[in-house]
Amino acid sequence: MVTVRKWDVFEISVHGASEGNPYLERTVSAVFEGSSERISVDGFYDGNGTYRVRFMPSFEGEYTYVLDGSYGGGRVEGCFTVLPPAVDSHGPVHVAGGYHFAYADGTPYYPLGTTCYVWHLQSDERISETLQSLRESAFNKIRFCIFPKHYDYNLGEPRSYPYEGTPMDSSVLTRDNFYEYTFKTEGNAFDYTRFNPEYFRHIEHCILELQRLGIEADLIMMHPYDRWGFSSMTPEQDDLYWRYAIARFAAFRNIWWSLANEYDLLPSKTLSDWERYASILCASDPYQHLRSIHNCRAFYDHSRPWITHCSIQRQDLYRSSEQVNEWRARYRKPIVLDEIAYEGNIQHGWGNITPEEMNRRFWEAACRGGYPGHGETYMNPDDVLWWSHGGLLHGESWKRLDLLSEILCMTPGIGLAPYEHCGWDEVCAVPESEFMLPVKSYYLYYYSFMRPSFRDFYFDNDTPFRVRVIDTWNMLIEERGIHTGRFRIELPGKQYMAVQIIRQTVSC
Amino acid sequence: MVTVRKWDVFEISVHGASEGNPYLERTVSAVFEGSSERISVDGFYDGNGTYRVRFMPSFEGEYTYVLDGSYGGGRVEGCFTVLPPAVDSHGPVHVAGGYHFAYADGTPYYPLGTTCYVWHLQSDERISETLQSLRESAFNKIRFCIFPKHYDYNLGEPRSYPYEGTPMDSSVLTRDNFYEYTFKTEGNAFDYTRFNPEYFRHIEHCILELQRLGIEADLIMMHPYDRWGFSSMTPEQDDLYWRYAIARFAAFRNIWWSLANEYDLLPSKTLSDWERYASILCASDPYQHLRSIHNCRAFYDHSRPWITHCSIQRQDLYRSSEQVNEWRARYRKPIVLDEIAYEGNIQHGWGNITPEEMNRRFWEAACRGGYPGHGETYMNPDDVLWWSHGGLLHGESWKRLDLLSEILCMTPGIGLAPYEHCGWDEVCAVPESEFMLPVKSYYLYYYSFMRPSFRDFYFDNDTPFRVRVIDTWNMLIEERGIHTGRFRIELPGKQYMAVQIIRQTVSC
Repeated sequence: MVTVRKWDVFEISVHGASEGNPYLERTVSAVFEGSSERISVDGFYDGNGTYRVRFMPSFEGEYTYVLDGSYGGGRVEGCFTVLPPAVDSHGPVHVAGGYHFAYADGTPYYPLGTTCYVWHLQSDERISETLQSLRESAFNKIRFCIFPKHYDYNLGEPRSYPYEGTPMDSSVLTRDNFYEYTFKTEGNAFDYTRFNPEYFRHIEHCILELQRLGIEADLIMMHPYDRWGFSSMTPEQDDLYWRYAIARFAAFRNIWWSLANEYDLLPSKTLSDWERYASILCASDPYQHLRSIHNCRAFYDHSRPWITHCSIQRQDLYRSSEQVNEWRARYRKPIVLDEIAYEGNIQHGWGNITPEEMNRRFWEAACRGGYPGHGETYMNPDDVLWWSHGGLLHGESWKRLDLLSEILCMTPGIGLAPYEHCGWDEVCAVPESEFMLPVKSYYLYYYSFMRPSFRDFYFDNDTPFRVRVIDTWNMLIEERGIHTGRFRIELPGKQYMAVQIIRQTVSC
Repeated sequence: MVTVRKWDVFEISVHGASEGNPYLERTVSAVFEGSSERISVDGFYDGNGTYRVRFMPSFEGEYTYVLDGSYGGGRVEGCFTVLPPAVDSHGPVHVAGGYHFAYADGTPYYPLGTTCYVWHLQSDERISETLQSLRESAFNKIRFCIFPKHYDYNLGEPRSYPYEGTPMDSSVLTRDNFYEYTFKTEGNAFDYTRFNPEYFRHIEHCILELQRLGIEADLIMMHPYDRWGFSSMTPEQDDLYWRYAIARFAAFRNIWWSLANEYDLLPSKTLSDWERYASILCASDPYQHLRSIHNCRAFYDHSRPWITHCSIQRQDLYRSSEQVNEWRARYRKPIVLDEIAYEGNIQHGWGNITPEEMNRRFWEAACRGGYPGHGETYMNPDDVLWWSHGGLLHGESWKRLDLLSEILCMTPGIGLAPYEHCGWDEVCAVPESEFMLPVKSYYLYYYSFMRPSFRDFYFDNDTPFRVRVIDTWNMLIEERGIHTGRFRIELPGKQYMAVQIIRQTVSC
């Protein structure tokens, strides 16, 4: 009996033609049918005459399939049984409760992401190191690029290329001249219609490694940091790329689609290009994985229906997470702050904030009902920066995210909403599901950079509330007992304090 | 020979009627005439049958005067000689260069103010302590109220009252109920048409003490923190107060007029009231001392012609000094940030920022061509908070202002303007007078909370520039030599760094 677990990948591999350009000239697709779903998916050419079709079943039970196409091997039929998922498998993540996320099995998912743009294009040793760093962290999402990256601190060659061909001679590059080579295609000899399957197989390996760690892979499909011509292909080549990537990656339950990092910096792409990619994605990804598009300056119109959540790079040097409320109100979608500057000390202003400020932005975002993202850019002799290469974490903010994760998991319901009736000088979150109710079961206050020595509270005359004081920087939680009516909570007069107030249900 | 120094106070004292209500029923005024000015000023009743007229001469040489009025003592004539000012006397401060200030003798004045709302209404010992604290600081402006203050941490009685009468019984006040007594006039028995001259004489003594320290007295004429009825007098009583205060204070060279602290919190005053006070002030102050009006939430319309400079309380919890550029552009007047929150640890969000953040806001404001203001609100067992009572300075930010003052004094010309062509991730100031010139002689870069490990600079190929690196928190200045063309300045990867770049004029 052929079996697969629900939300795992069921793959059919067939042999077909290898002459000509199979990527362009051949097709393969299959229809999968169980008692609760019937899904058509396109497959892809994986080189050496091998064609594959991948499918992620969303239901348990018996499935049949029919594979066909011009790939040269004819029609194939088969059947398999979908077993219950593994204990730690909760399915793909989708939007839940308007502003939040949950796995397919209903388990809430609170994204705490990081960014390592091309961690997967480094050496095997570095990749192992990155995975070990991730294992020790609270991160449950990572943003990375399908294409290699050309930028400051990113002048080296990737481990391989997504297309057949050869790159420009990168020995001419220096820290001072690399800008001049950005978007230049001279010297490259790639065939943008012939993929390098090994390149994509390696990405799939990395996606699976992340899956084992419970980490969502937020795939950045396009980006402007390019010297190889991958950002300036023709529309036909772009569409070929999108269909190929979707056919390869969509069946992995832990992937998200980020159409671009800094879409507005790609000079050769127009709004209609982005909309066309989105159309392809919506039509070709049967699982409707999460979709977003990330800005440098101007936001993409996050109200577009195909965008599932806002992937935001902050636009203001001083305010980032503080704007979650207004973005929630404007877009009515989950707010994921994929770039709120990085902890570090490089020369660029986007990469040199303190760990304290990073941690502050995390709490500020979370207590406003948004989801913050991390990154690290510390100078080091080897120019191995977490933000791009992965490797070791050198900072301090990542160590504090276990605490935030722990607190988020205490949220009643699916996620937190900003409490609009709190004081002007505090941030307060309440459960999203209780937003419209006059009585809330839970309040999470945050005092950010302010240093109150005490705060007074009053909710009603009778209800007992359990109070916990959280030092978000020093990672200390103090139980402060049960309080009723008007009560005062003494605080240490330090920055970065939170107060958790939990309504006690009185049993009769 | 009767003499007075230029910009000092020449006072004529005469004896007149004391029966009835001289404040309401009697007048006294004088005309002063020298070769370069002819000034009419109103005098005031100082109690016990004494009337006084005060005059501040703006020119040296011979003056005559004629005093007259219904005060009961008849016409008086006289003459005096105005001598050169004392070495440390530079005259009153006025707006200069559009966005800046200078003393009457042309010396640039860079305001670095603090706030001690009712320091002058404390005990003699506390007042001496405050003056000693000011002497040891770089502050050259202090904001304080003419009327006493009723508010959290301000429940005690002032040393005396501005009017004849008796106050409500303040023994009923507690930290929890004081709000209920704000704006309540019950229990007070003041005659709002009979001043207490001793109260005003004491304020004048304090103004003169400040003058000796080279400190401008930014007099807050009205404010909402009141339980004595001083904020809810009739228009006639208000106008009497304004005329009396102007007659008493205007001749002191170091005074500024702040029409209100938080004008928008006085429920009984309308826009036309504020405009009427301004009209009285413009008509009655012959020296046209600086005039401003300070907000809680909405700004007063700072474009009103009588407003000489913007006195701003920041409106955003997160951004304060960062908005100087936009306020400069909107109002085209000096931007004085009289409240950007206070260093301290009290429960209120306006009074619990760190010294580092306070110092950052100072530098951020200065490097954007604005003028920041200080205040301190540290908890202590005696409830003596600098912000209101003066006394000792307990914080850390005030110690750093000597350095900022020293750097501001190096500014070529009258003051700094924001350099609009700097990088998005830095703040940079250039001399206001060179704002329109293609070549600047001076750049002051500031990196705020960011931590670059180096920055690259390029101005032109040939000019030598002297570079100084300033650690604004640790108060260290490093000379980094002369640089030409493209150059890199190594930085320590710490917050709060500034870089001073000074064009070297090559002597032939």
